[in-house]
Amino acid sequence: MAAAEARPGGRRRCRRLEGEAARAVLGAADTLLFDCDGVLWRGEAALGGAAAALGRLAAAGKRLCYVTNNSSRTRQAYGEKLRRLGFPPATPRHVFGSAYCAARFLRQALPPGAAAYVLGGPALAAELREAGVPHLEPGPAALPGPAPADWARAPLDPAVRAVLVGFDEHFSYAKLCQALRYLLRGPDCLLVATNRDHRLPLEGGAAIPGTGCLVKAVETAAEREAFIVGKPNRYMFDCVASEFDIDPARTIMVGDRLDTDILMGNTCGLTTLLTLTGVTTLEEVKGHEESDCPARQSLVPDYYVDSIADLLPALED
Amino acid sequence: MAAAEARPGGRRRCRRLEGEAARAVLGAADTLLFDCDGVLWRGEAALGGAAAALGRLAAAGKRLCYVTNNSSRTRQAYGEKLRRLGFPPATPRHVFGSAYCAARFLRQALPPGAAAYVLGGPALAAELREAGVPHLEPGPAALPGPAPADWARAPLDPAVRAVLVGFDEHFSYAKLCQALRYLLRGPDCLLVATNRDHRLPLEGGAAIPGTGCLVKAVETAAEREAFIVGKPNRYMFDCVASEFDIDPARTIMVGDRLDTDILMGNTCGLTTLLTLTGVTTLEEVKGHEESDCPARQSLVPDYYVDSIADLLPALED
Repeated sequence: MAAAEARPGGRRRCRRLEGEAARAVLGAADTLLFDCDGVLWRGEAALGGAAAALGRLAAAGKRLCYVTNNSSRTRQAYGEKLRRLGFPPATPRHVFGSAYCAARFLRQALPPGAAAYVLGGPALAAELREAGVPHLEPGPAALPGPAPADWARAPLDPAVRAVLVGFDEHFSYAKLCQALRYLLRGPDCLLVATNRDHRLPLEGGAAIPGTGCLVKAVETAAEREAFIVGKPNRYMFDCVASEFDIDPARTIMVGDRLDTDILMGNTCGLTTLLTLTGVTTLEEVKGHEESDCPARQSLVPDYYVDSIADLLPALED
Repeated sequence: MAAAEARPGGRRRCRRLEGEAARAVLGAADTLLFDCDGVLWRGEAALGGAAAALGRLAAAGKRLCYVTNNSSRTRQAYGEKLRRLGFPPATPRHVFGSAYCAARFLRQALPPGAAAYVLGGPALAAELREAGVPHLEPGPAALPGPAPADWARAPLDPAVRAVLVGFDEHFSYAKLCQALRYLLRGPDCLLVATNRDHRLPLEGGAAIPGTGCLVKAVETAAEREAFIVGKPNRYMFDCVASEFDIDPARTIMVGDRLDTDILMGNTCGLTTLLTLTGVTTLEEVKGHEESDCPARQSLVPDYYVDSIADLLPALED
């Protein structure tokens, strides 16, 4: 497979994936990791040609996995959505959401009997249950009295040894307060978060705050940095690699975000492919390409396509 | 008045304020600015000797002002608390809380008719009302529906041209969402916060999250930095200086926090006096003294006392 292309001076360079190069790159890969939102679909609508492209990749014997920072859906729910939108059948085992990866991390990191205090929703709780990680059920929480002294006296669960922060539409000062109180138990209480995405884009240019905002609030209170299981951290790739026999040199990471999908792929030695159907423009890529800053260089993908439908010609017999 | 003492190499040095030096330093000052919590009182209990020391300073003709990052009380409420705990009478005019300073800033910065969206409590709203700044009433807020698309369609007030973040026990994802939507209007919508204190210490080593956690959440969502009216920013001192005829060379800032009280005092050219009755230890001061880092040097106070009761001997006739 074509390695990351470097220009004189060591700069990375991003090329359009088309023609013979596309046939060669796809032919040499045995695994493709797909981000979902902005890559395969937007909201409830599959992107044109995406299902057909994945169908051909599956028919050609490629392993298809799905890696998403969204902590609001279970592996099961992703499998159902893929099926509903016409993508090739995917078992939950091929889906690596940040809720599942967080549950997996805590199952390994927590001592027996230890529990997690969860800022998150039902999907995060379901993945914890599935992984056998004891946890407090998430949901709305009220302050336990009118005065700060009351808030600092609310009951704490003695079993809690981790605070887990995911997307939580019921996030509140009351929950931030409890999270801080658990974290003040010291380094024995882990601080884990699903991802740092700071905004979730919606249709029509609207946006809502992402999990990263909640993580920052908790980190600021606790004066600690969270361990992030989601992209760009390599933990999510390590989950894939521990489940399947993955050769990074034969794996392509396909995503629409430079600071999560492409950075994780580059960090893990994968071939990286940006699709312009999501939040990134080619101008941003060019800006990073021209930069001498190593941090910006690491955001440059190996290849880009306007849409993964552009892969269809290279996948014809 | 004794200027900031510098050792060879330009390092600041912090000395105990006692004996003849104390008489000289206090004698040369005409104004003292006091932080309150941890300096004058803890919770509802005045610190021993503090009221007597301030009584003598007032009797000696010193101007006493109160500068606090706490946005949960009005100037009026601070005046009443000072009286209740036996301190010399203080008019609201001598109290500079971050709620008042934020209202003052917005009165000057907002165009006529423009309003503020407020994350805060009743005291912040009261100071805005007093300053004549139109604002949405703070309080609990619920998400306007089950789905993200609903959240991005909740009504917005067309008059809002600022988001103001103070201490808000009703802070929630729903309010973070509305704040982001106002800030997405662009630079015409200001982002202002009362302070960045990340924790509020309570009795017995307990702590609750401070306003700084909420500010970080909003800044992360909006990808913007807030203008902070509270310490260590000099805006709070500028408020004092625009109200009274202040000579920085004849003004002492008395506080218990290095990163707010002492930093603001040093930045504004005041004499700085640390009291060890609050959150800071002398070991922390020594660490900054020994550092070559300019940012840490700027946290070194000119003087320290164990408690402001230590000033009493220097204030005897």
